[in-house]
Amino acid sequence: MQQTFSYDQLYNFTFKIFISIGCSEPDATIATKVLLAADMRGIDSHGVARLSGYVRLWEAGRINAKPQIKIVHETPSTAVVDGDGGLGLVVAPFAMQVAIDKAKNVGTGWVSVRNSNHFGIAGYHAMMALQQDMTGIAMTNASALVAPTFSIERMLGTNPIAVAIPAGKQPPFVADFATTTAANGKLEILQRKNANTPLGWAQDKDGKDSVDANVLKKQGALLPLGSDRGHGSHKGYALGSIVDIFSAVLSGASYGPWAPPFPAYVPIPDNMPGKGLGHFFGAMRIDAFRPTDEFKHHMDNWIERFRNAKPADGYERVLIPGDPERELENIRLKTGIPIVESVINELIQVGEKFGVTL
Amino acid sequence: MQQTFSYDQLYNFTFKIFISIGCSEPDATIATKVLLAADMRGIDSHGVARLSGYVRLWEAGRINAKPQIKIVHETPSTAVVDGDGGLGLVVAPFAMQVAIDKAKNVGTGWVSVRNSNHFGIAGYHAMMALQQDMTGIAMTNASALVAPTFSIERMLGTNPIAVAIPAGKQPPFVADFATTTAANGKLEILQRKNANTPLGWAQDKDGKDSVDANVLKKQGALLPLGSDRGHGSHKGYALGSIVDIFSAVLSGASYGPWAPPFPAYVPIPDNMPGKGLGHFFGAMRIDAFRPTDEFKHHMDNWIERFRNAKPADGYERVLIPGDPERELENIRLKTGIPIVESVINELIQVGEKFGVTL
Repeated sequence: MQQTFSYDQLYNFTFKIFISIGCSEPDATIATKVLLAADMRGIDSHGVARLSGYVRLWEAGRINAKPQIKIVHETPSTAVVDGDGGLGLVVAPFAMQVAIDKAKNVGTGWVSVRNSNHFGIAGYHAMMALQQDMTGIAMTNASALVAPTFSIERMLGTNPIAVAIPAGKQPPFVADFATTTAANGKLEILQRKNANTPLGWAQDKDGKDSVDANVLKKQGALLPLGSDRGHGSHKGYALGSIVDIFSAVLSGASYGPWAPPFPAYVPIPDNMPGKGLGHFFGAMRIDAFRPTDEFKHHMDNWIERFRNAKPADGYERVLIPGDPERELENIRLKTGIPIVESVINELIQVGEKFGVTL
Repeated sequence: MQQTFSYDQLYNFTFKIFISIGCSEPDATIATKVLLAADMRGIDSHGVARLSGYVRLWEAGRINAKPQIKIVHETPSTAVVDGDGGLGLVVAPFAMQVAIDKAKNVGTGWVSVRNSNHFGIAGYHAMMALQQDMTGIAMTNASALVAPTFSIERMLGTNPIAVAIPAGKQPPFVADFATTTAANGKLEILQRKNANTPLGWAQDKDGKDSVDANVLKKQGALLPLGSDRGHGSHKGYALGSIVDIFSAVLSGASYGPWAPPFPAYVPIPDNMPGKGLGHFFGAMRIDAFRPTDEFKHHMDNWIERFRNAKPADGYERVLIPGDPERELENIRLKTGIPIVESVINELIQVGEKFGVTL
């Protein structure tokens, strides 16, 4: 059913594929690192499982492998970056670096990006800020799969938000989550097992409760975080909307139901109101607020207090955002990354196109 | 059961109470405006219903009616404000103005606040940015009532987030929500009706599902947005944590379970790691990213498209964040503000202390 690969095996393969589609060496390097960060952290839907999807977008002429990424507008604390249709895996680290550089100068930096593509896991980009003793923020809009509260129309993507906050002796706080009750990747896992979803994850094309893991293929929709109005879905809808507006309306990318779809076989929407996908990044220097050591001391105290919060019966401990991903990363560094058969087959096929073996 | 008051009646009464406890005229004016904005917008739990609570905190020496609010640290795009124990209703607009002024200079402004108190509705402060063609962001930590995922201990407040985004012909986008499935005010409404809550709002002291609207008085806890792990409560827990850290760890306020409680009869926690409650504000100039007219045109398009998303059976229309509150505000401007009997009685009692009649 599945096989285990070392980080280096997957790295070498993925890097060669990016080189084969025409990426420069530095671009292929960063794209590979971002993609594999997902596999290492257990967000398997956003790692090498997407490599063939990126290649198909390139084949369809929807990804520019040699982008001229540019700052098109800026102030001391802000910028708009045009990704020139490049891989989001390359455009996003460029833009996050702009945010970090601005924060070095004036305390914080905020960058909205247009004309990009899927950028892998939001957490990678937010975590870039940590080495600089900064808090990092990353978000992106995405293909519309989510119905707003009271609606049956797919208007928003799963629009994730990541926030990475440095600590001292403790590992950093790293939240990285879709603004829906469940991310699409969770449905894909259940599809492979022929299992149903819990109630509250998705609705069918008429807006009725659904437990069908394939409901998105039948014009159903994912539900915003909160699931229904009585449990706060209007809050998840608002969060997804904020991500869409900061990422795309602010930058001049295509927003809402017009966000360009990831699957290359889905046609680009008519009358797109902007260019490509949009992202939004933020970096805040800790010492723009408070001495870094003092902050880290209190952040350690915060983390220790929450880690030691009294667990409910049947639970061993309370987790800090970022704990499960970091723990899995440590395991996978040692024992390798398990890849399911269907993904392996796709990778082999992609490799054959370019004469690259897995 | 309830009586209706005009805005002016409540304004005059509330203003006089704030003057009576020693506020300056400008401070009493802004405090009254912020408090009544909640009543006008239908967030009745945060309006005059809280006035007696503020007075009790003042009587207990926990609110300073004559604060020296100060910027204690700053960079071109950031500041930390010390509220000197003042009313959050006064400290918050001061700090938001600092954020707006910084945004005028360098594109964005970000202000973390310590040594403050409850600040009314987050939406009021975020909306201050709108007149300047800026996006406004406001959040605050609060008394611990919320258990993290897998925990039975109250570690976080309902920690609201507000985001206000200007539009052109359309009214602005204004999201303002607690990071829990239901705000505490929702439980209070059900208590008055002797009704149960839906499942998923709260848990009892052992972490078991509860529908008891009085469960918080029995050591139960509110649940983070998402309700349970299977429906994304770890995301609501992460959001509430981010609000706590940005508001309190960044500024030097008291965080997590040590946040000072609003009810004056609840003792201040021992060993508080910081001063008072914390808030966090942001202001982003639209034209720091894109020409304002262009942005507003696309924001109108965004709002119109979402407003016209196909509604589910049984629903008339899809709402934009801010629609319900704005519509209610227009109604209450004309027909007045209904106040329940128990709140009227409390107001009368507060008035008697200072010789102010309702």
